[in-house]
Amino acid sequence: MADGFAQATRKPALAVLHTAAGTGNGMGNIMTAFLNKTPLIIIAGQQTRQMLIGDPYLTDRDATMLPQPWVKWAYQPARAEDVPAALVRAIAIASMPPAGPVFLSIPLDDWVAEIDFAPVIRTVGQTIAPDPKRLSEFATRISKARRFALVLGQEVDKSLGWASAVALAELLGAPVYQAPLAERAVFPETHPLFRGSLPLAKGPLSTALTGYDLVLVVGAEVWRYYPYAAGPVSPPGLELLQITNDPHDAGSALVGDSLLSDSRLALEGLYSLLRNNSLSTEENQAKAAPGSAATAQSKPRKSTALMTASEAFTAIALLRAESDILVQETPSNVGDLLDAWPIIREESYFTSASGGLGWGGPAAVGIALAQHNRTTVLAIGDGSLHYSVQSVYTAVQHKLNLIILVPRNEEYAILKEFAVFENTPNCPALDLPGLNAKAIAEAYGCAAFRADNPADLHDAFKMARGLDGPALIEFQIDPKLEPLPV
Amino acid sequence: MADGFAQATRKPALAVLHTAAGTGNGMGNIMTAFLNKTPLIIIAGQQTRQMLIGDPYLTDRDATMLPQPWVKWAYQPARAEDVPAALVRAIAIASMPPAGPVFLSIPLDDWVAEIDFAPVIRTVGQTIAPDPKRLSEFATRISKARRFALVLGQEVDKSLGWASAVALAELLGAPVYQAPLAERAVFPETHPLFRGSLPLAKGPLSTALTGYDLVLVVGAEVWRYYPYAAGPVSPPGLELLQITNDPHDAGSALVGDSLLSDSRLALEGLYSLLRNNSLSTEENQAKAAPGSAATAQSKPRKSTALMTASEAFTAIALLRAESDILVQETPSNVGDLLDAWPIIREESYFTSASGGLGWGGPAAVGIALAQHNRTTVLAIGDGSLHYSVQSVYTAVQHKLNLIILVPRNEEYAILKEFAVFENTPNCPALDLPGLNAKAIAEAYGCAAFRADNPADLHDAFKMARGLDGPALIEFQIDPKLEPLPV
Amino acid sequence: MADGFAQATRKPALAVLHTAAGTGNGMGNIMTAFLNKTPLIIIAGQQTRQMLIGDPYLTDRDATMLPQPWVKWAYQPARAEDVPAALVRAIAIASMPPAGPVFLSIPLDDWVAEIDFAPVIRTVGQTIAPDPKRLSEFATRISKARRFALVLGQEVDKSLGWASAVALAELLGAPVYQAPLAERAVFPETHPLFRGSLPLAKGPLSTALTGYDLVLVVGAEVWRYYPYAAGPVSPPGLELLQITNDPHDAGSALVGDSLLSDSRLALEGLYSLLRNNSLSTEENQAKAAPGSAATAQSKPRKSTALMTASEAFTAIALLRAESDILVQETPSNVGDLLDAWPIIREESYFTSASGGLGWGGPAAVGIALAQHNRTTVLAIGDGSLHYSVQSVYTAVQHKLNLIILVPRNEEYAILKEFAVFENTPNCPALDLPGLNAKAIAEAYGCAAFRADNPADLHDAFKMARGLDGPALIEFQIDPKLEPLPV
Amino acid sequence: MADGFAQATRKPALAVLHTAAGTGNGMGNIMTAFLNKTPLIIIAGQQTRQMLIGDPYLTDRDATMLPQPWVKWAYQPARAEDVPAALVRAIAIASMPPAGPVFLSIPLDDWVAEIDFAPVIRTVGQTIAPDPKRLSEFATRISKARRFALVLGQEVDKSLGWASAVALAELLGAPVYQAPLAERAVFPETHPLFRGSLPLAKGPLSTALTGYDLVLVVGAEVWRYYPYAAGPVSPPGLELLQITNDPHDAGSALVGDSLLSDSRLALEGLYSLLRNNSLSTEENQAKAAPGSAATAQSKPRKSTALMTASEAFTAIALLRAESDILVQETPSNVGDLLDAWPIIREESYFTSASGGLGWGGPAAVGIALAQHNRTTVLAIGDGSLHYSVQSVYTAVQHKLNLIILVPRNEEYAILKEFAVFENTPNCPALDLPGLNAKAIAEAYGCAAFRADNPADLHDAFKMARGLDGPALIEFQIDPKLEPLPV
Repeated sequence: MADGFAQATRKPALAVLHTAAGTGNGMGNIMTAFLNKTPLIIIAGQQTRQMLIGDPYLTDRDATMLPQPWVKWAYQPARAEDVPAALVRAIAIASMPPAGPVFLSIPLDDWVAEIDFAPVIRTVGQTIAPDPKRLSEFATRISKARRFALVLGQEVDKSLGWASAVALAELLGAPVYQAPLAERAVFPETHPLFRGSLPLAKGPLSTALTGYDLVLVVGAEVWRYYPYAAGPVSPPGLELLQITNDPHDAGSALVGDSLLSDSRLALEGLYSLLRNNSLSTEENQAKAAPGSAATAQSKPRKSTALMTASEAFTAIALLRAESDILVQETPSNVGDLLDAWPIIREESYFTSASGGLGWGGPAAVGIALAQHNRTTVLAIGDGSLHYSVQSVYTAVQHKLNLIILVPRNEEYAILKEFAVFENTPNCPALDLPGLNAKAIAEAYGCAAFRADNPADLHDAFKMARGLDGPALIEFQIDPKLEPLPV
Repeated sequence: MADGFAQATRKPALAVLHTAAGTGNGMGNIMTAFLNKTPLIIIAGQQTRQMLIGDPYLTDRDATMLPQPWVKWAYQPARAEDVPAALVRAIAIASMPPAGPVFLSIPLDDWVAEIDFAPVIRTVGQTIAPDPKRLSEFATRISKARRFALVLGQEVDKSLGWASAVALAELLGAPVYQAPLAERAVFPETHPLFRGSLPLAKGPLSTALTGYDLVLVVGAEVWRYYPYAAGPVSPPGLELLQITNDPHDAGSALVGDSLLSDSRLALEGLYSLLRNNSLSTEENQAKAAPGSAATAQSKPRKSTALMTASEAFTAIALLRAESDILVQETPSNVGDLLDAWPIIREESYFTSASGGLGWGGPAAVGIALAQHNRTTVLAIGDGSLHYSVQSVYTAVQHKLNLIILVPRNEEYAILKEFAVFENTPNCPALDLPGLNAKAIAEAYGCAAFRADNPADLHDAFKMARGLDGPALIEFQIDPKLEPLPV
Repeated sequence: MADGFAQATRKPALAVLHTAAGTGNGMGNIMTAFLNKTPLIIIAGQQTRQMLIGDPYLTDRDATMLPQPWVKWAYQPARAEDVPAALVRAIAIASMPPAGPVFLSIPLDDWVAEIDFAPVIRTVGQTIAPDPKRLSEFATRISKARRFALVLGQEVDKSLGWASAVALAELLGAPVYQAPLAERAVFPETHPLFRGSLPLAKGPLSTALTGYDLVLVVGAEVWRYYPYAAGPVSPPGLELLQITNDPHDAGSALVGDSLLSDSRLALEGLYSLLRNNSLSTEENQAKAAPGSAATAQSKPRKSTALMTASEAFTAIALLRAESDILVQETPSNVGDLLDAWPIIREESYFTSASGGLGWGGPAAVGIALAQHNRTTVLAIGDGSLHYSVQSVYTAVQHKLNLIILVPRNEEYAILKEFAVFENTPNCPALDLPGLNAKAIAEAYGCAAFRADNPADLHDAFKMARGLDGPALIEFQIDPKLEPLPV
Repeated sequence: MADGFAQATRKPALAVLHTAAGTGNGMGNIMTAFLNKTPLIIIAGQQTRQMLIGDPYLTDRDATMLPQPWVKWAYQPARAEDVPAALVRAIAIASMPPAGPVFLSIPLDDWVAEIDFAPVIRTVGQTIAPDPKRLSEFATRISKARRFALVLGQEVDKSLGWASAVALAELLGAPVYQAPLAERAVFPETHPLFRGSLPLAKGPLSTALTGYDLVLVVGAEVWRYYPYAAGPVSPPGLELLQITNDPHDAGSALVGDSLLSDSRLALEGLYSLLRNNSLSTEENQAKAAPGSAATAQSKPRKSTALMTASEAFTAIALLRAESDILVQETPSNVGDLLDAWPIIREESYFTSASGGLGWGGPAAVGIALAQHNRTTVLAIGDGSLHYSVQSVYTAVQHKLNLIILVPRNEEYAILKEFAVFENTPNCPALDLPGLNAKAIAEAYGCAAFRADNPADLHDAFKMARGLDGPALIEFQIDPKLEPLPV
């Protein structure tokens, strides 16, 4: 919840956990917050400082080790008097690029210690700009490219860089791809230059970029692969430039030259440098050509007796408001979902950078808390829902403006698809029969609907929008496996 | 589940988790397993070895750091060929005293590598015996004591040492206390020498031992304190001996002399050494005297319009079978529960050593899986239940012989009691209204009852015992706070 | 050596260590390299991958834990095939701001594995620029300051920012202080605006800044305190701005607002923004006024029968060439040294950022290797020399252009001074009688001189400059303790 | 020094280091102490608690991470008041089996805090005994063996188990091997049942055990391999039993069944169980037969113009006193040394368990400090000497009864031999010309001799024995490489 809230308010959020047990329970989502680069201040209670030497009950032994390696800083103040300064420092570290979670372990009795000084309030910069010399070299290389493409990642959205990205893409006539598995939408997905997401595996991704001689990746890793499919990292003849504000991602890139910067500032800087460039429109469009073939076009699934995920999401697409926020944790249906529901506005799509299930439910609650004037729509599989099903209760207690869409396939479909991909089909223990999301939601006091055809789903979604508080809509979909998207 | 299963089968159990996300989600219970000293082999998947250098999606970066400090060993084999030997080594390390969880990170593609050798099967000792010289010194000190008491902890149960403990206590006529917050029952709780649990805080615990000149603590920490209440560690004049198989617990003891050993072997050794001792029965009984005053006798709560926890547990006590296993995660009601339901048989009571909520639900499922011929009764608060409410689903799918008792107080009572203890009453955010355990259980397909008076509860429990599969019984209890037990 | 070499070549250097033993032996200097922010690629050998599962002799168990927390990245490739990419990644991570050491553990047999692909060569940016918006806010605050001072730290030297710092200081007429314990010289120390180093402790440092209303700290921590002397962090009324390229140092600053940037780029940016500012010369000079009182002026020590350190360093000051490099590890004499030998050129003064003794000897060797056309002068105490006295041998073997000055006081003077400061004088075990640096140098084959008066020292230094290879000059100094500089 | 002192006094020793720098400098030898299983209390100073929040100069950031993974416990007390209890706990943890170093980080100002309670003094057991049931199973298996051998490791010496080992070996008529690379002598090396050390690599070690059907390894790893030479872990038909007090070594064993115990207690226990066994002497001797073929017999090196190491060590062997202690750090000459100087008394031979160079010099100083009535002889290569050459100074200052033998080959011979073994001869940078150990020793004030033929060496050693204080004897040996011992 705190992760979603922090992302949706663009401010660090505070989460308080219960010593080792609470920190342990939270580690999955702390890991995701680290990869999401969400500024979080996590405070874990610690046994009273008075007793720590004897390791009493509920001691968080080696408290600063527990959250490693998934926090930027882990600290237990050496004195009660340092708690205020530690908090100030925590906020500073969490906020600087790349943002992320920090961890403080605070002994119980520190909270009642007296201090005789006012805590210092201070600020830190949260943005780094591109080195002008290196940015200029990048601009020169772009200006000399003959077939050029832009690949945009999540940092573009986080830096509020959509407008700058659109301006640069239009200036250059460059086709625009979304980096694989980006946890944010990065560009108006209905824009004529948008070519969809790049493939998720080595060979296919390389194939998709064949024909270009230069690609500029802004705000993404190079590359966030998912399954392994053999092939080169890049097609022959392709050069690659990467702009990121995260030294880790610059370091782990497999090819290309990197520049450290905020995405928006770098996009603006490149626009300025290339604005008066001699590129003619014809040349730009010629460069854009190969991309058009690479446009991601998912084939609609054939209709069966059961509603497909595609049909389901299409059925409600027209009811969508432009201001709606979409939170996604339905790995086996994400393609169909985004085909039906293209993102056209900045800061309107959220998923996890880690692939860690259990994040979507509470994150949507946090986002809905933060953005109560917009409707938050959570699309979450019937399996995924159960990682953090308790978050429905919080949504009810806070009467959030949240609609939970639960496509029901009664299986762990993405792992079944993965098993097929790995030539080990029929892997056991991946069926999930009898999860009744509607009944559970109702048990938590949440309005809930079951809608197993497009018309009912349309009606349920319409009703849900009218409610004062959250609603859950469960709908059976065709459980037929699709090939793993690569 | 794996923790409960391992404990209830007395064998290492295997748990398979999903790379960083699954390991992260499991860290709370991994921490508890470490403190429970449960032998667990935890395997986390890792991205394919082929791609690791580029940190692709779902990479468990620094995989062996994540589970620290709560595993005995964390390892990622340097070669696929080492996976079998790593498993053998993992089992060995997990099993040796003190037992505990170990962690292996296995890249996806390692599982399909070919090896041309047979894995080596080997065994390790799982028991250490007392150094004869030091044990003899302990025996001499016991034989010279004038007012002596035994304090027993969880290791006595885990070493199958009840009979040895009874024999030694009876030989010496010594009063027997349970170590504070022991996660196992340690002695027949209806035995005339049994004096109940020691207090949970410094001052009161010291007071409870006043009058003794020597205490022998077997299989427990010295001391597992919970809240801080000022006072000495030991009363003046008290000497203390500790026997444990865990060097950590011997190291962190605040007073006394320690001996490293399995509890049962040490109890047997002391019995042999003291058997021909000249202690007369009178002296023994004189020694036992102070203890009798210290006997823990909880006052029954006064009856109100609402059923008290005490009344509730009493209502079903007679329906209990001697073979029943009790799993407990209801911190604010545990005293009432055990008063009504004294443990009289070895390996029949389980709670967590860590106090980490979220363990009881799945642990009870694991125990019920392991001991399907006995009925497992889980007593779990309406709040605690929701940490791992999903475990109800697994119980249903496996038709387990499990009865879940949910006292409902609609609050986080133990923290409210703690807040009163710390002079900060009315702490916000500790009310939990509207959690409907019965409805949720039914939504998961579990038989469920609501019983808000003793008679209904009695009937419901009787019906539950007759079912083929799990049942949940929810009952409202008087939410009035009791003083924090110290 | 590798640290000095990397700093003096401005390139990452490669150091190869012997598994756990060599890495362990190097940890002191690895720690210093981390604080020096020196880009180092440290490779430690690891036992053959074939045998690792059984922990054979010379296994670097948990190899990536050993160098923590003092490397930016520690990695053991998951496959032999990944060694080239791991090296590329290591260079990238070491080089990005803040630069620092990285660690690779490479199994012995990986070096003979065959690969069938060409390693990818790539570059990363090594400079971050200031966020224009925040820099502009800083400029505005500076333009409104009434009494303004500049404090410069080591990053100014490392970014080749002296000219920019001089330009900005002269533009604003601002007094310039060196940040406490800077490991580089930061400004022409004979420049009229230079006010020497700030004090090293809380109270005195605060006092030194009294009177200013705004201080801009560029390229330094806020603050690198050494002993504890009570007092406020800042005097009342002082506002503070910090510019650093290290998020750690921005996070740990105790006061002020921070901006992330390369020092030179930020100084240039501020110059541009303030160039047309309306500040009159009179106002600037008024602002500079308080600083003049704060000028650091060390009192010359009174002459005794024994030569003082001050006299000694003065005796050779005139023989100094402008191109000489000074490396310093003589903590109790550093003030006298720098008074006699002010630094007037960029990249000409090196000491450690950590205070870790044992760095100066080998670092000077590395610097002399890198800058063979300049003379490297190492000033090192007779105690400090012995941390890494073996480096003399390497200097001899390579016939380096290195002069080692060894003031001899036969004691651990800085700790004696510290003991006086802490009111615990006459601390035992701090005398070091009989260390004969000259004899040891000669034993290693190094030219060596003993010179116990200024004239002999002058002559010895002159002779040393004329030699083809290193020379060591030992000279007795008055061992009288000075007050600890705070 | 502390490691040697602790081993030679059989008590935990205290070493005090200078915050991160000193701990870093010590990490190589801390690693060795961990593998030596030496009980050490390492205290590192930490900056004053008052200032830690701002990371001032000399802060040991993440102090408890730095010594990982090579300490048993790393701790910084949460309060000054806990320093006494932390020390008590540190001693306890360091002492329990397997013993090892522990680390405390103590802020400077903690030492002046007042406490109003007396520190608790307590003891812990330092010995674990064998589980009787499992020991009995081992005895049964031994009694049924047809060709049986004993392999003894360092724990036998550390547990003062020589007499028990001799008794058991003689009872069974079993041949006795030393485990490879044992850091202690384990059995009278002139005893008729002694067969020398097992080979250091997989294939040869397996070959050496061919013909046995059961081997009992006491107090050693299975196996401490050095170079990799292909072959099975064990020959076909061999079963293996291991007794160790270290769960790590029981876990990492590649074959066999393990029992956790002190070596001496287990040897005594087996003796008791097998004493009345029906094994006839003939059978025992038949069992012993294969071992006789496996006896390690090093061929004497042919004499050349230069004295060989073998000739050198032989020349002084007759001057040896039975009480002499031998400390060894001359990896390329160790075989010749021990052939000439067989160990015949318990606790008389010390080398490092880690192979980490730099340990021998200071360890010998510590041993000589502890055992001042015996002569300590350090045999150390001219290269090895220079890792910690400063220890000569300490020996001089304390006038220790220490003789340092420096065979001089002017090369890093063991690595040259390793390079030949790995088919990469002529590896660069392994020559060490011109290291003049005699001159350096003299520069430190140590008596020193140069003796390049057996007669001179004999005389020098004789003179050295007569001195009041340490002496160093350097002697040129034939630098011809021998095959790497495997």
